[in-house]
Amino acid sequence: MAGRQTAREWPHYATFVVSFLTIGIIWVNHHGQFHRISTVDRPLLFLNLLLLMFVVLIPFPTELLASYLHAGSDQHVAAAVYSGTLLVMGLCFAASWRYVASHGELLTRVISRPELRALTRRNAVGQGVYVVALGLAFVSAPVCLALCALAAVYYTLPGRLPEGDRDIA
Amino acid sequence: MAGRQTAREWPHYATFVVSFLTIGIIWVNHHGQFHRISTVDRPLLFLNLLLLMFVVLIPFPTELLASYLHAGSDQHVAAAVYSGTLLVMGLCFAASWRYVASHGELLTRVISRPELRALTRRNAVGQGVYVVALGLAFVSAPVCLALCALAAVYYTLPGRLPEGDRDIA
Amino acid sequence: MAGRQTAREWPHYATFVVSFLTIGIIWVNHHGQFHRISTVDRPLLFLNLLLLMFVVLIPFPTELLASYLHAGSDQHVAAAVYSGTLLVMGLCFAASWRYVASHGELLTRVISRPELRALTRRNAVGQGVYVVALGLAFVSAPVCLALCALAAVYYTLPGRLPEGDRDIA
Amino acid sequence: MAGRQTAREWPHYATFVVSFLTIGIIWVNHHGQFHRISTVDRPLLFLNLLLLMFVVLIPFPTELLASYLHAGSDQHVAAAVYSGTLLVMGLCFAASWRYVASHGELLTRVISRPELRALTRRNAVGQGVYVVALGLAFVSAPVCLALCALAAVYYTLPGRLPEGDRDIA
Repeated sequence: MAGRQTAREWPHYATFVVSFLTIGIIWVNHHGQFHRISTVDRPLLFLNLLLLMFVVLIPFPTELLASYLHAGSDQHVAAAVYSGTLLVMGLCFAASWRYVASHGELLTRVISRPELRALTRRNAVGQGVYVVALGLAFVSAPVCLALCALAAVYYTLPGRLPEGDRDIA
Repeated sequence: MAGRQTAREWPHYATFVVSFLTIGIIWVNHHGQFHRISTVDRPLLFLNLLLLMFVVLIPFPTELLASYLHAGSDQHVAAAVYSGTLLVMGLCFAASWRYVASHGELLTRVISRPELRALTRRNAVGQGVYVVALGLAFVSAPVCLALCALAAVYYTLPGRLPEGDRDIA
Repeated sequence: MAGRQTAREWPHYATFVVSFLTIGIIWVNHHGQFHRISTVDRPLLFLNLLLLMFVVLIPFPTELLASYLHAGSDQHVAAAVYSGTLLVMGLCFAASWRYVASHGELLTRVISRPELRALTRRNAVGQGVYVVALGLAFVSAPVCLALCALAAVYYTLPGRLPEGDRDIA
Repeated sequence: MAGRQTAREWPHYATFVVSFLTIGIIWVNHHGQFHRISTVDRPLLFLNLLLLMFVVLIPFPTELLASYLHAGSDQHVAAAVYSGTLLVMGLCFAASWRYVASHGELLTRVISRPELRALTRRNAVGQGVYVVALGLAFVSAPVCLALCALAAVYYTLPGRLPEGDRDIA
């Protein structure tokens, strides 16, 4: 029956939603980051290219995890590949941000210490969740996926940035 | 024969046209909406992300409905999934518009009561058509699809907005 | 052998090149058209949406023609569908241009009679080639495809527009 | 086992990374090129269209090479098609740059002799690597792919351009 068949497809819906939100949040944060950047140099362009490469990759581990969750076997490696891809993507974003932070001449204005700390902490929380998700992939693939979803939800919340910066990051 | 085979593919053409026009209209209306917005805050960005997620989803229920219409069985659930997706997408659009309307500081200029009523009414008509389409999905899948087409045609007509606003919404 | 197999795929290469160039030329001409437009109204938006729908459709008749040329049978209907899609797309472009031409208030500057005649003639030549291609589809599918390629080449040549307009159209 | 299966897919990962970086670098260089261009004329538009056509083609020889590397036979023709496509794409880029260089009126400012020489040399190095890769395709497909990767890495390095131009090309 089409109804039951549609329901059994939950891994495809769940992984689609998590991946879509994650890419969306990367896009929002990337937008916030480039809002603060006035000039782009060659290393930053290639760091961005690297980030983009992992963003473009996401549909593949998403499909991989969805089909293994659907098949009901060998889910652990697929979940590890999935959360690992998100982790590496997060690290690329962190690297490009770290590069910008240490090259003040690329920024539109001076970035304050507390602001930098807040941004770095926020980024580290996400990476931490992905590391835990990667570890738990070998225990339970659905729990690993749920943790990745949690990381996405975390980033939708406005950060506790110093006043006047609530709109970005 | 290629001719007859091509003709038998009508569900793919019909669902493609309806989905394309619906996405096109969402795009035109979204354009009209953002024409009136001067600032974007975090909640609006995520409401937009939610809308975009359902827009991106549309090809899947479109393909689902096309193949079930083509196969000639189990069309009802597919039609319900299709019209349901359009309904939820419309609700996301309504939610983002409602959020903007209640946060005057995001708008380029003050929005008048009659204008707001006209826009809300117009949006409600579309949602109403989708609700009826969803209900009729279990009676006849082609009628459900025809109603979704009707909603698209309705939105192509210029709204009866107060003077000076005919260009948007 | 991979070499011979690759060579036998010529219908996929040929149809890809013709379709790509056709879409590219539509894009260049569309760019030229919107260069002359200052305001967009609702009918023009929907005429554009209609044009875009046929542009988005092109990959499907392209694939259809490629596989029937490859299979070596029933090519005529596929060629007719292909050239017919290009014809309808051309008519959509002509319709949107006709609409703009008769709504002078949408233009950045007044359009002269000779310029309008030159543009209309140029557009008519393309439509004429597509009509002939459509007719010849039932005689020879490769000739039909070659004519569509010819139409694309014709549009790459700079038009004989009055001085000062050579850059567009 | 999912793990081993994932590992055996290395040709898909390797070709994806090489193709992605190559397209990314074309994009960065294209960006640098258009940074120096103030006006676009019809021939340049079509040279760009030609370049874009080969960029859009890249996923197909990429997939071709990946599957033949994976299958372990007939890799040579696939590698030749792959490196040949990159070579032709590079030649299109060189052609559009040559056209711009000989039409000074399209440039934002006069281009100096040493700068032009540096850009031409840099471009020629890339083409040379692709020519060698194409020749070696018939000896070893993985070596051919490695050379294409090397060309990509070469372009990520900042060129030895005259002072003040390090940001581009």
